[in-house]
Amino acid sequence: MEQLHITEDMLAGMERFHRANLINSLSGAKQAMLVGTCNSQGQTNLALFSSIVHLGADPALLGFIQRPVGVSGDSFRNLTDTGCYTLNHVHGGILVNAHYTSARFPPEVSEFDACHLTPYFLEGFRAPFVKESRISMGMELVEVIPVTHNDTKLVIGRVKHIRLDRECMGDDGNLDVNMTDSIVVSGLETYHRLEQVARMGYAKVERLPDFSS
Amino acid sequence: MEQLHITEDMLAGMERFHRANLINSLSGAKQAMLVGTCNSQGQTNLALFSSIVHLGADPALLGFIQRPVGVSGDSFRNLTDTGCYTLNHVHGGILVNAHYTSARFPPEVSEFDACHLTPYFLEGFRAPFVKESRISMGMELVEVIPVTHNDTKLVIGRVKHIRLDRECMGDDGNLDVNMTDSIVVSGLETYHRLEQVARMGYAKVERLPDFSS
Repeated sequence: MEQLHITEDMLAGMERFHRANLINSLSGAKQAMLVGTCNSQGQTNLALFSSIVHLGADPALLGFIQRPVGVSGDSFRNLTDTGCYTLNHVHGGILVNAHYTSARFPPEVSEFDACHLTPYFLEGFRAPFVKESRISMGMELVEVIPVTHNDTKLVIGRVKHIRLDRECMGDDGNLDVNMTDSIVVSGLETYHRLEQVARMGYAKVERLPDFSS
Repeated sequence: MEQLHITEDMLAGMERFHRANLINSLSGAKQAMLVGTCNSQGQTNLALFSSIVHLGADPALLGFIQRPVGVSGDSFRNLTDTGCYTLNHVHGGILVNAHYTSARFPPEVSEFDACHLTPYFLEGFRAPFVKESRISMGMELVEVIPVTHNDTKLVIGRVKHIRLDRECMGDDGNLDVNMTDSIVVSGLETYHRLEQVARMGYAKVERLPDFSS
């Protein structure tokens, strides 16, 4: 296939939306997640994110990238006010609902209501879970690390609660993201299902496959 | 389906590998990427990462999470020494090769050689690209942000070069990750293809779908 080489100078000269689509595509496909929060008056909020990263298993820490506040600041304001939030996997059955949470609703409208998703609360935990989600985490805010170069932030939380469909967890603890019909997003708005192609063993030098075959 | 509720205390009591698998599954599926570097003597290195995040389109910044150095420190040492690295999408045709780069090869062995992948250099750029990859970026190291809670780091780089198959870029700049057969990973070692299910428009309050239908 023909190779294209795009330099930083060529990027700078690209039409704005073309460049944004290209750059947003470079990081590949990522899990679509709904971030659930409430403000100090208890009003719920829901927002779609795709920048969730694993940070460590013990303690169990997950991070996500918060864009410059103002673009989509309600979740961030709420989770810094209350110290907690939820992360909820998007699946095929709630994909359209999840996508439309990113419309700019007036501040007094909850995306749960507007997009027909159901808030669910665990006793003693203030942030709303998405009841329809098959894998959800209740997170305690641990740290917000500013990225000085472009005013984004790495938001770090600790896993306090996990809610999941019992059938999707294997005997070894792995979650079957095909069974849950989890949805990933590439670029800004293209959604994909997953089709498992391989479950590899731990890679060992003594057991390399025959690459030449 | 039956819901399971796992608390932080229950996590602490789980068998170690069961917990690691579960926690590593929580962040969902992420693009599998090969990070290409070379040391100051020019020896090449290749390592598999799945924690790449989009940070911004202008300037074009991508981040990834570096685990505590020592676990897999060659890439990190090299990119801090040379100031540059490459990110290369894994596709179905190089999945097995890519997976085995995570075996612990002796320091004098390049994963390019051991796993039958081809280094490719652009003039004036020291880090090796994976020639077989269909979407690759040449990155300039911009900043390393320590995460104090567990000794991981957010490594931030600026996109200097993009190499891609011409056919995979749409007229609007979006990359077709189905056409490139891009591979995502869930948990520690389960790999998936993507099947596009929807390309949504920009979400607007005035154009909500009928959720009740």
